[in-house]
Amino acid sequence: MAIEGSKQQAQGGRIRLGMVGGGHGAFIGAVHRIAARIDDQFELVAGALSSDPARANASAAEIGIAPDRSYGSYEEMAKEEAARPDGIEAVSIVTPNHVHAPAARAFLEAGIHVICDKPMTTTVKEAEELVALVEKTGKLFVLTHNYTGYPMIRQARAMVAAGELGDIRLVQAEYPQDWLTERAELAGSKQAEWRTDPKRSGAGGSIGDIGTHAYNLAAFVSGLETQELLAQLTTFVPGRLLDDDVQILLRYKGGARGMLWASQVAVGNENGLKLRVYGTKGGLEWTQADPNYLWFTRFGEPKQLLTRAGAGAWPQAARVSRIPSGHPEGYLEGFATIYAEAARAIRAARTGAEPEEGTLYPTVRDGLAGMRFIEAAVSSSSADNIWIKLA
Amino acid sequence: MAIEGSKQQAQGGRIRLGMVGGGHGAFIGAVHRIAARIDDQFELVAGALSSDPARANASAAEIGIAPDRSYGSYEEMAKEEAARPDGIEAVSIVTPNHVHAPAARAFLEAGIHVICDKPMTTTVKEAEELVALVEKTGKLFVLTHNYTGYPMIRQARAMVAAGELGDIRLVQAEYPQDWLTERAELAGSKQAEWRTDPKRSGAGGSIGDIGTHAYNLAAFVSGLETQELLAQLTTFVPGRLLDDDVQILLRYKGGARGMLWASQVAVGNENGLKLRVYGTKGGLEWTQADPNYLWFTRFGEPKQLLTRAGAGAWPQAARVSRIPSGHPEGYLEGFATIYAEAARAIRAARTGAEPEEGTLYPTVRDGLAGMRFIEAAVSSSSADNIWIKLA
Amino acid sequence: MAIEGSKQQAQGGRIRLGMVGGGHGAFIGAVHRIAARIDDQFELVAGALSSDPARANASAAEIGIAPDRSYGSYEEMAKEEAARPDGIEAVSIVTPNHVHAPAARAFLEAGIHVICDKPMTTTVKEAEELVALVEKTGKLFVLTHNYTGYPMIRQARAMVAAGELGDIRLVQAEYPQDWLTERAELAGSKQAEWRTDPKRSGAGGSIGDIGTHAYNLAAFVSGLETQELLAQLTTFVPGRLLDDDVQILLRYKGGARGMLWASQVAVGNENGLKLRVYGTKGGLEWTQADPNYLWFTRFGEPKQLLTRAGAGAWPQAARVSRIPSGHPEGYLEGFATIYAEAARAIRAARTGAEPEEGTLYPTVRDGLAGMRFIEAAVSSSSADNIWIKLA
Amino acid sequence: MAIEGSKQQAQGGRIRLGMVGGGHGAFIGAVHRIAARIDDQFELVAGALSSDPARANASAAEIGIAPDRSYGSYEEMAKEEAARPDGIEAVSIVTPNHVHAPAARAFLEAGIHVICDKPMTTTVKEAEELVALVEKTGKLFVLTHNYTGYPMIRQARAMVAAGELGDIRLVQAEYPQDWLTERAELAGSKQAEWRTDPKRSGAGGSIGDIGTHAYNLAAFVSGLETQELLAQLTTFVPGRLLDDDVQILLRYKGGARGMLWASQVAVGNENGLKLRVYGTKGGLEWTQADPNYLWFTRFGEPKQLLTRAGAGAWPQAARVSRIPSGHPEGYLEGFATIYAEAARAIRAARTGAEPEEGTLYPTVRDGLAGMRFIEAAVSSSSADNIWIKLA
Repeated sequence: MAIEGSKQQAQGGRIRLGMVGGGHGAFIGAVHRIAARIDDQFELVAGALSSDPARANASAAEIGIAPDRSYGSYEEMAKEEAARPDGIEAVSIVTPNHVHAPAARAFLEAGIHVICDKPMTTTVKEAEELVALVEKTGKLFVLTHNYTGYPMIRQARAMVAAGELGDIRLVQAEYPQDWLTERAELAGSKQAEWRTDPKRSGAGGSIGDIGTHAYNLAAFVSGLETQELLAQLTTFVPGRLLDDDVQILLRYKGGARGMLWASQVAVGNENGLKLRVYGTKGGLEWTQADPNYLWFTRFGEPKQLLTRAGAGAWPQAARVSRIPSGHPEGYLEGFATIYAEAARAIRAARTGAEPEEGTLYPTVRDGLAGMRFIEAAVSSSSADNIWIKLA
Repeated sequence: MAIEGSKQQAQGGRIRLGMVGGGHGAFIGAVHRIAARIDDQFELVAGALSSDPARANASAAEIGIAPDRSYGSYEEMAKEEAARPDGIEAVSIVTPNHVHAPAARAFLEAGIHVICDKPMTTTVKEAEELVALVEKTGKLFVLTHNYTGYPMIRQARAMVAAGELGDIRLVQAEYPQDWLTERAELAGSKQAEWRTDPKRSGAGGSIGDIGTHAYNLAAFVSGLETQELLAQLTTFVPGRLLDDDVQILLRYKGGARGMLWASQVAVGNENGLKLRVYGTKGGLEWTQADPNYLWFTRFGEPKQLLTRAGAGAWPQAARVSRIPSGHPEGYLEGFATIYAEAARAIRAARTGAEPEEGTLYPTVRDGLAGMRFIEAAVSSSSADNIWIKLA
Repeated sequence: MAIEGSKQQAQGGRIRLGMVGGGHGAFIGAVHRIAARIDDQFELVAGALSSDPARANASAAEIGIAPDRSYGSYEEMAKEEAARPDGIEAVSIVTPNHVHAPAARAFLEAGIHVICDKPMTTTVKEAEELVALVEKTGKLFVLTHNYTGYPMIRQARAMVAAGELGDIRLVQAEYPQDWLTERAELAGSKQAEWRTDPKRSGAGGSIGDIGTHAYNLAAFVSGLETQELLAQLTTFVPGRLLDDDVQILLRYKGGARGMLWASQVAVGNENGLKLRVYGTKGGLEWTQADPNYLWFTRFGEPKQLLTRAGAGAWPQAARVSRIPSGHPEGYLEGFATIYAEAARAIRAARTGAEPEEGTLYPTVRDGLAGMRFIEAAVSSSSADNIWIKLA
Repeated sequence: MAIEGSKQQAQGGRIRLGMVGGGHGAFIGAVHRIAARIDDQFELVAGALSSDPARANASAAEIGIAPDRSYGSYEEMAKEEAARPDGIEAVSIVTPNHVHAPAARAFLEAGIHVICDKPMTTTVKEAEELVALVEKTGKLFVLTHNYTGYPMIRQARAMVAAGELGDIRLVQAEYPQDWLTERAELAGSKQAEWRTDPKRSGAGGSIGDIGTHAYNLAAFVSGLETQELLAQLTTFVPGRLLDDDVQILLRYKGGARGMLWASQVAVGNENGLKLRVYGTKGGLEWTQADPNYLWFTRFGEPKQLLTRAGAGAWPQAARVSRIPSGHPEGYLEGFATIYAEAARAIRAARTGAEPEEGTLYPTVRDGLAGMRFIEAAVSSSSADNIWIKLA
């Protein structure tokens, strides 16, 4: 167990953080705030929590943001905070997808680091512009593909990189849910409303919401680059405007192949993200609902159950583990690790130092890869499921 | 618990059975013999157990077949047995694939019922001829897609048919193994040798050996007919002549969609056959390695663990169950159910009666469907993964 | 995979078997018959299937026993069969408990080997007399503690014996069921009737029916001898005459300690037999409902999932395995192994040879140990839970 | 999902918290700090983090406690903080056991609420005095039996209370670990050192460290009061001064019975806390390592898998849930719920109001019950395992 965030916190105090989105009724905003608190690296001091000013201010008051730092728009917030001597050093963008890119631009241009939810933008073009802007400004951009923060995912990545599985042949990724089995977007669910609305979500429904998570995780663990994909997107629920199920074949550089399935209509699945990777020498299996376990088999040997912080844990898992094995860490701790890694990078950036060795988080380039994945999948599906090159 | 096979056994004595293949070193022959014994419906009295006559006779002696009924070829056996007043009523064909069709022809033409392993033939053409011959002769043809004999698979089928899942949207089938991760066919494994040899297996490797099982099971449970498929077959192990991995997208009539994955190089998987079916009202999940359990979720309700012969068991499961729940039945009992169903049909055929209500087994038409599946998948894969129509 | 019973079957033909009990409505009789058939070592040729002669004859006819070998009583059967040149070589006694001892006596004295259900008798005195009679007659006595036939239980025993766990410290055994949660004995369940009737079951209810299984299994795997026990027997269901729950503390010779819990009122448990053994170097866990798995942990290493016939299987498991790993074997196969082992012993006895190396089955001494366990537990419970010495 | 702690945080700002113990090398101090942060109710502003002043100050600096509020002793801290206008309102005591009682006394007498780790004291006498002192001072005393904070444990308790299980018959509790399988206390483990030292732990080893957790959880869920117990404590590791394994029989008022097993030498178990409760109508099973699941069976119906925040979640689980089902919450969130409940009570105490309906946490009386449990178990074990009355 390596994390006691407070240690770094002492190095110059907590990082001053702002938030865009995340007011009343939002789900992911509260998750980001808990994640930011767990390792005590951040202090939330400013917010543009809602596009509705009254709601923004009420939300700010509730979570202890001072009235003069509750803003009516992200533009105003970026400008004002950049001008304050005690202004925010970083901002978390937790809005519906279509706001990610313009908000990120505003803060990057104001010299403020960005922590941003996924999918990163609504188009590849926006994503490419964001990559360029990050490079130009030199500010940090952290994309919250939070599943990469799970300790056993870190271990899986390290094991693959170390050759424990040999050459990778197969990557099977899936993310079934069932919450959109019926038309929840007509039944008052805010979450369902914007996620099924092309104006706010972009061209992808389930593929953007959860398909990108599965795709990112597969790449994160396998270390493979996608060469081409073939996709079939389906809208099962009549009247829905975006896909609620996606089936994809993947070809990776070097000859590995993969399948990816994401669905929001698979009854009985809550958040069934699962990743399986098979190579010439071994195989790995991991399930998000039981994240403290990693199944590992060396060809010809019995299957092993590796546990976070247990006997088979690698340093890469232990580094992001907080408590002993057998005491489960969960989703919020995995999410918190993204924030803890961001904090390491931001502290290093304060002085121009290198961040602690091993610091690892999804970047603007992962965001671009995600957008290319969505766009390619939509194209393939529209063209009767042909192969689309990605690299 | 409904099966005590002996009851029917008394109705005219056990059914006289012969076997083609299944001599020394064969795996599946012994399985068929145990399956035939479990419910006490059959008596194995004749065999052409090997194409090597010495081996055939030695094998016959070991398993108690009288020397005068151990034959050097199936042709001879069909002819001689047909001529005996106490000749066999049915034959089990348990050879490599390329012998299935000619052997089946010989026995059907001799007026003997056929129980045959899968895949049924090596080409669609052979399969179509066999369908015609079965219809012409009026003899029974039972294909041992043995997984359809598992009680909870029977229940899954019944639940889908009764509308418990609503309209089916998704069928996810997979069958990963790892035993061909390395080149076992060069290391002395008889099983690996013929299964990776196009002359004996036909055009499909993993797709014929295990892909057909997954495909058949998906159809058996969902009741859906495949409209078209798109397949990617891969040979991962250098030098191997047939596919050892197959990834398939399926479109069913009526709009349901499916994915099918079968692999023989997925390290850590023994016989990981798994089926998941999702509809507008509910979802089902079943795993072959733990076959006494069926997971069922009604949309918006907690997941239920249905157990064979337990509180949630339906009559269709109980009918093919032998012992109380919590005492696991396994692979051999599921296989035995195919034989028990065959016995019911054969006894009925003795007198021209209808078999017991509910009698259910895979037929020559399922065998033809399997061959069409293999052929379409090979075609799709060869043509850079285009959709191939099946209906 | 080592068993193809038929091999030995050829060595002098199948063993001629009779059965006492097991007529209509009996559960365990049909189980014994399937178990005897699976490896093709036995031929059931005679029976005294019920104490009701009409039912006995009807049952015999149904399962193919010739009318002249369907007997009205076991005494008659023992006498007549002993006199026939083709008389039975062994008998299976599958009656309620109170008949075990007198029936066993009749056949042993007639020179016929005995396969007998558990608990062996209804009193320790009867059990001791049976031990003496077996020794005097030199006939074989096989007690069907069937769970000892599971391959992974064989492996667990072998691993403990080989020192893989170091010195054993703890043995945790449990067998929860729920079928007697309400008063099934008043609702027409034959099984419940005799199992809750002291006249037919003896002094123990759940302790005799399932507690003895757990106790026997703990001893079989751990190799330990019980020094003393302390028991609390409870009858939770009002009006029931025997215990339906039992909680026991165990002290083994050498310092190991154990707990044993058996219950027939633990709602949600079907046949939840579970055994856990912990030593100075390692630990093992096994569950009857999922019998193909054995969890093994070496102290300080990751947990391993050993599978029947898989990479981590020992010869002692492979020897009693029929099919490849990943294809589950179940309760009937485990039971069949007891019959296969009995067949090896009986064939050896035909010629006075030693049975095949490794032949292993529960004996009359295990039956005596079981009766001492029941009697000690009843005594301890009656005396307000004091320690009772067993060795 | 009901918790967004920040809401209450706005009601007068965060609660000012101090900490006794929890300096470098301590495990549980960091856990308490994370738990206190998750729902943003507390601000840690003072500490006596170590009995070694240099270590105390260094630890304080690291976690952001101002130097003038880092104290060399808890006595000094209680006195000084009570005198400050911005002094702490509550203190967390996270030291080895022998310090709990004197530290708690100091703060209670200074008018400061106490959050204290378990076991509460080292003797029943101390515990009784603490109960009296809490009653006299009227200050709050929250005992961190953290497992009671798990949402599905809250649901289990609510289901039992609502009669879903009928009358409770059986309570099976266990808590196996393996970290003391060898003599870790000689190998430099601080945790092992004080936990196996009677001077710092009191008369119980494993029974105090983990047995009390299992005992408390059984009572919390079942709502039953223990009438008497019979215990066998064992020290398996030679040279160890306290028990490392405990086996207990329990008799509850009203006739229910229970077994409790806790062990620190059960190889392969990390933190295997498990609770099973069975009644006349239903049964519940829960495992700490997979805390988001609760298995529930109504007698005669299929088993249900209830999930935190899923379809079968009750308001009592939802109330303490932060994120959607399928995204696992873990140990830290359960622990945080104890702090969130404490915050509700402390805020209410500020104004003399009643805390929010449903506010629930272990109190000083639970601490006394735990000490009586330890003392009775030690007595029973010393007296050759006789029944000791508790009520």
